[in-house]
Amino acid sequence: MDLRDTVLNMGEWERLIHRAETGEITEPLENVDRDDPTPYDAIFVGGGAGGRFGSAYLQARGGRQLVVDRWPFLGGSCPHQACVPHHLFSEAARELDYARWNAGTLWFGEFDEKRASIRDLIELFKAGRNNPHAFMNWQSKEQLGMEYILNAEATVLDANTVEVAGRRFTARNLVLGTGASTYVPDIPGINLPGVFDFATLIEELDYEPSRCVIIGGSKIALEYGSFFQAAGCQTTIVSRSPLMRTASLHHVDEDLRTYVLDGMRKRGMELLEGAEPLEVIGNGKVTGVRVRLADGAELTIDTDFVFIGTGERPHSQPYVDALGVEVDDRGFITVDSRMRTSVPGVYAIGDLIGSPMEMFKARKCGMTAARNIMGEPYEFDFSEYPDFLHTTYEVTWVGLTEAEARAQYDDVVVIQMPPKGIRDDELALPCAEGSMLYAFTRPELTGMQKAIYDGKTRRLLGAHHVGFGAKDAFQYLDHLLRKGITIDEMGDMNELFLNPDHFIQLSRLRAGNSNLVDL
Amino acid sequence: MDLRDTVLNMGEWERLIHRAETGEITEPLENVDRDDPTPYDAIFVGGGAGGRFGSAYLQARGGRQLVVDRWPFLGGSCPHQACVPHHLFSEAARELDYARWNAGTLWFGEFDEKRASIRDLIELFKAGRNNPHAFMNWQSKEQLGMEYILNAEATVLDANTVEVAGRRFTARNLVLGTGASTYVPDIPGINLPGVFDFATLIEELDYEPSRCVIIGGSKIALEYGSFFQAAGCQTTIVSRSPLMRTASLHHVDEDLRTYVLDGMRKRGMELLEGAEPLEVIGNGKVTGVRVRLADGAELTIDTDFVFIGTGERPHSQPYVDALGVEVDDRGFITVDSRMRTSVPGVYAIGDLIGSPMEMFKARKCGMTAARNIMGEPYEFDFSEYPDFLHTTYEVTWVGLTEAEARAQYDDVVVIQMPPKGIRDDELALPCAEGSMLYAFTRPELTGMQKAIYDGKTRRLLGAHHVGFGAKDAFQYLDHLLRKGITIDEMGDMNELFLNPDHFIQLSRLRAGNSNLVDL
Repeated sequence: MDLRDTVLNMGEWERLIHRAETGEITEPLENVDRDDPTPYDAIFVGGGAGGRFGSAYLQARGGRQLVVDRWPFLGGSCPHQACVPHHLFSEAARELDYARWNAGTLWFGEFDEKRASIRDLIELFKAGRNNPHAFMNWQSKEQLGMEYILNAEATVLDANTVEVAGRRFTARNLVLGTGASTYVPDIPGINLPGVFDFATLIEELDYEPSRCVIIGGSKIALEYGSFFQAAGCQTTIVSRSPLMRTASLHHVDEDLRTYVLDGMRKRGMELLEGAEPLEVIGNGKVTGVRVRLADGAELTIDTDFVFIGTGERPHSQPYVDALGVEVDDRGFITVDSRMRTSVPGVYAIGDLIGSPMEMFKARKCGMTAARNIMGEPYEFDFSEYPDFLHTTYEVTWVGLTEAEARAQYDDVVVIQMPPKGIRDDELALPCAEGSMLYAFTRPELTGMQKAIYDGKTRRLLGAHHVGFGAKDAFQYLDHLLRKGITIDEMGDMNELFLNPDHFIQLSRLRAGNSNLVDL
Repeated sequence: MDLRDTVLNMGEWERLIHRAETGEITEPLENVDRDDPTPYDAIFVGGGAGGRFGSAYLQARGGRQLVVDRWPFLGGSCPHQACVPHHLFSEAARELDYARWNAGTLWFGEFDEKRASIRDLIELFKAGRNNPHAFMNWQSKEQLGMEYILNAEATVLDANTVEVAGRRFTARNLVLGTGASTYVPDIPGINLPGVFDFATLIEELDYEPSRCVIIGGSKIALEYGSFFQAAGCQTTIVSRSPLMRTASLHHVDEDLRTYVLDGMRKRGMELLEGAEPLEVIGNGKVTGVRVRLADGAELTIDTDFVFIGTGERPHSQPYVDALGVEVDDRGFITVDSRMRTSVPGVYAIGDLIGSPMEMFKARKCGMTAARNIMGEPYEFDFSEYPDFLHTTYEVTWVGLTEAEARAQYDDVVVIQMPPKGIRDDELALPCAEGSMLYAFTRPELTGMQKAIYDGKTRRLLGAHHVGFGAKDAFQYLDHLLRKGITIDEMGDMNELFLNPDHFIQLSRLRAGNSNLVDL
């Protein structure tokens, strides 16, 4: 279907995507300028976050690109099965938590957790997800001028050639960005009905679970687990590693970790760390999970719902086969800081090259590939980045933990709320947007925050926050921390009181000291 | 009561403050080092935000200070009657709004607005407000080493002398910071029972209002009005000026203003702009307000509750009388950029010197006075600052509006969400923390955002946001904007997706262009 000369509005795009998803339309959806003889600078294989942002950047730099995706929309798995539903679920978890703690007070009615349904929320998401899909197709075409072929798989033939729906397209470069999907661990029974990952949860859940066992200790495990629990589905996490101490999560401060995990336990979750899942039990459908606990004892947990959160594996095999591209032992494509693979002219981006499986990385990988393809040497180092996860809280951190700082610096100064020596149930601080009602009803739920400075240079080394409303700020704190922001500059800023993070005013209370001390 | 050698915990402080508030303790609460012969560098008259932060800074710089407050706690009106209850009410407004729009769906029960009570929320606040008071007394003494006398009025005798509870204290300097209170306009009937301001609302409301008329168009009018309406109290704002176009609010973008006011109307509020309140009617108690509308017609609005939001006037008369300090035509004390008044050695800070009546200004005024007193020339220019208000949304802005930018720059580039030409009810964007459920149920409620760049220098000129979760970030955006942050630097940052403000990723989508264009 040639859409080159058609401007579809949101509703028209939504209906078109829907018809493609239901199989009513099987032909490719094309926005390609067939009359333009200019050779392509790059073909982006996969139109997820990285492919879309890379394409936009390359276009903006004056290059010509084509992006191809098997789905009838750009944007990839995030708005379809991953970050967007996860955020919807995390918001629900927060609101359910709020309704539960405040039940019977003020305007809150009694809390009936049977009203909360995981399936209802999934259905709500699925009914609406084509709206962001429609927007990305519209924006990519009408605002960003991108060429694309959707609803069609791209087959890579060589480093310059891709076949799409029987036609061949050539380009100076290829940018591979077809992502990853859940790694299914080798456990007996893991393929039984009733076992889901984040993608099949959205596409296939057809009953309301009453009890959940999560296998794995990843960010996804904590996030979805918190939602299931908040929705009234008693949840147990079975994790080999200590939670939040897995390789994929760095710079997790111990106080932050304690607050987060204690908060999950306080809400009724069972966290089995150092535990080994031995078998998923069932007869045509999941009925339990057999587990070896940290102390060696075995336990069978009855459940009608198992959720896998054990990390992801890349979709790299076709490129190994067609191009001989170099991969690591888990199949992730090896790239340099310019996103160049071992094959000249072939770049790889996003989840395909490994962790962190985060949006900023995917998008900036795409931008990095685009800049280099357009002749601008540009390197992207994502070894350090701000990070977050959601439980019933927003949990955000950047830079060094207190322990890391103490290992590297002689004069570490910690500024935190609640202060050391004050129990969190006797102090309503920190509070701000989102935790005001907790402050006056359940002070122990208002969160925690910590800023870490080097006393010698007075520079900010790290910031850590559990609460609400600070996530957006951590993007800018990451930038400022890299620029060497000091406690004096922090104390000179203009806070918007009641600011969700109290870093500015707390820093000001100490910035007058020539020898910094803790607060 | 000499507390010098006593460490009270939170609970002990709360009880002590309560006993002082109820009149059981009438003597001053003192943390003064009577054995220290060092002269005071400054006495801070008033221990609100400015006095407390100024004292902390002066202490940290090695100076000696004394702060005196008539209330039995430090922190001033903010945690007692102003910003803290306002934030609690604004959070309630947001949650009530959420419960109302989602009524009968998902886990939300039917919404019965009769359950929502303004009085209940005030009582909840009053029951808990001594906790932050206790914390500030504790922190100021145990962590910040401040000397203070609380529960005692300070009488200024001359530029070096203050009398407190019959004793005289001298200092090299005085720092005046006794704030302001509501300006009560000269309208017949304005003193009838049933007429409140933000302070008397907390202290005196003894019935549940059913109908509200707000006189005034200030930030307070919009914020409290949104809460009253959300709590089921039909609210009319009567404002002489167009709302959000008053002198005290600068840099309000027209699109932001439209979104905010339309949102208030959508929620049932009546906004009468260009209207003149003629008389508060009642017989022993308020029963109505007579108003002349913009078209000249007169109207009587039946109501049992009138709320005044017409700005504030300073508590400066004692200093005019005792010191002859210079004030402006409304009584605000005139200071230079170092917070020096017309009287040598006397500084004034916070609400006492005029608008903005914001926390950052009060605290930084205190710090500025402290630095100058300690011999460090330091100027504080608060003519530009990031600003915010709450309706059922968090509304934040910094820098130039689109119109202001166009008046000053030739090549203005606007990056916004929803984009121009897309109706907000057909697009679920922007969304992030706090608006995910709206995105899937009522896309028109997800907010709006706009970043404004100078196409020539590529610098950020302004940012505007209606939604949730971006307020904290605007503190850092203010700093970055002053430092001349460009679209290229913005596009290079690491966003935390789904980031409440979309400025980073939207900027990246355009940053590749050598000639910037709108998005």
